[in-house]
Amino acid sequence: MSSNKIFQKLIAMFEGAPIKKTMGMTLEFTDMGEVQIRMPADKNFYHGMKGGDLHGGIIATLLDTSGWFTVAAHYNRFVLTADLNIRLLEAAKRQALLATGNLIRPGKHLAVAEMRLTSEDSRLIAYGSGSFTVTSKEIVKTG
Amino acid sequence: MSSNKIFQKLIAMFEGAPIKKTMGMTLEFTDMGEVQIRMPADKNFYHGMKGGDLHGGIIATLLDTSGWFTVAAHYNRFVLTADLNIRLLEAAKRQALLATGNLIRPGKHLAVAEMRLTSEDSRLIAYGSGSFTVTSKEIVKTG
Amino acid sequence: MSSNKIFQKLIAMFEGAPIKKTMGMTLEFTDMGEVQIRMPADKNFYHGMKGGDLHGGIIATLLDTSGWFTVAAHYNRFVLTADLNIRLLEAAKRQALLATGNLIRPGKHLAVAEMRLTSEDSRLIAYGSGSFTVTSKEIVKTG
Amino acid sequence: MSSNKIFQKLIAMFEGAPIKKTMGMTLEFTDMGEVQIRMPADKNFYHGMKGGDLHGGIIATLLDTSGWFTVAAHYNRFVLTADLNIRLLEAAKRQALLATGNLIRPGKHLAVAEMRLTSEDSRLIAYGSGSFTVTSKEIVKTG
Repeated sequence: MSSNKIFQKLIAMFEGAPIKKTMGMTLEFTDMGEVQIRMPADKNFYHGMKGGDLHGGIIATLLDTSGWFTVAAHYNRFVLTADLNIRLLEAAKRQALLATGNLIRPGKHLAVAEMRLTSEDSRLIAYGSGSFTVTSKEIVKTG
Repeated sequence: MSSNKIFQKLIAMFEGAPIKKTMGMTLEFTDMGEVQIRMPADKNFYHGMKGGDLHGGIIATLLDTSGWFTVAAHYNRFVLTADLNIRLLEAAKRQALLATGNLIRPGKHLAVAEMRLTSEDSRLIAYGSGSFTVTSKEIVKTG
Repeated sequence: MSSNKIFQKLIAMFEGAPIKKTMGMTLEFTDMGEVQIRMPADKNFYHGMKGGDLHGGIIATLLDTSGWFTVAAHYNRFVLTADLNIRLLEAAKRQALLATGNLIRPGKHLAVAEMRLTSEDSRLIAYGSGSFTVTSKEIVKTG
Repeated sequence: MSSNKIFQKLIAMFEGAPIKKTMGMTLEFTDMGEVQIRMPADKNFYHGMKGGDLHGGIIATLLDTSGWFTVAAHYNRFVLTADLNIRLLEAAKRQALLATGNLIRPGKHLAVAEMRLTSEDSRLIAYGSGSFTVTSKEIVKTG
């Protein structure tokens, strides 16, 4: 199957995901096949410290999502996040954010990806990696 | 300052956190001083895979939150999550969830906590640890 | 097979491991079945900073080993360390060290263990966790 | 101070480290300033499983070392490894190994680096990241 077809199926699945709507995320694949997950600044996801800014767990959610789609697109399979290592480097400063992924190791049953999160003003907000269990289930349209 | 006063200030801060309302989280301190973060099942945070279940990043958010309050309560200081290591062990199966924390190492400037997430039906859903930078800012009421 | 027989086979394998001799490690199983890996103070493994102390990677080696045997004993199978998360909490201060393990999640194909390293004078030197891929190969005497 | 002078001091310190000799490691800085840690195949560090191969903890040691020198060279300061996340991707297959490092985030007090380990035959053996606490102590010749 062509990459484009896989991308279309993944985008259809993503569009149907409740969390996509709740967090206002978007998913795109670049011409090079890179995953791009975007989220606008949204104060509904701010923590309670003075000043208010995006909760670190939501940053983890963006990185998990960019890693997941990076791996799923490579295999054309459903995958399961097994673990995440997330390093929070800077406050998001209420900016729109972009999460990308990079496949480090496409193992037979376990894949490793690294993920990065940057802000609109080009700061590296977070960096991480994850391992993802590759299932035998092919991606199918869920819409 | 007594633990109870610190707990009250942290709860006030938590109640004012936008993400608390968005995710429907609650925070309690047990008589032993243990942090308990709860979240009801909420399909707005489900991923897009068949069947639908809680997104792993939201699981990370609950663990980050329980670790953060565990550390902040110990120091009576604002802390910053520096990194998270999250291991996703089971699907949440659309259950209400409870995140707890345990202080492993109260360092002068960097604290380590471990966190656990269990489901209403007593399964261990996720397990993780984090390091938290301890700032010089005392917890104050933000409401 | 009884736990004792598994323990005996694992100890035989451990005794034949070159790194066991090089690092002077010992392996014991307690009556409760807990793994105990010990290493005496050995300046051959010190780093180059002033004062000299045990290299963090050797600390990681002790934790990896205690986690590996904890998981292998549970399954009576060879396992492969997939990832390690190691938090270095204190300098070893040239002390003999004890690494233990605790099985957090015995999954079908992937197990999670947490590991702790303490010094002779009862300080918590390091804390970590790992995931281990469970193979289909039973433990056999390799001696 | 020029990078070359810092490199020379770090190499002098490395040459005096007991573990350097024990493991047969070498340290070089490339013209681009990249750290290269090498270790020849050495069966003294093999685990006890059939076939025998390099213990995962020694792989962690090589990654810790390449990350440490990457960070120390940037700051011209002694640093302390705070945590390591190590992903073991392939068996080393008894090959000579090369560990490199890449500074991801030079924070004021905490730095993040990623590290890679490749075999002589160009396989990616391991991948990881670490955080390193930056001390106020300048690198000095310890020889």
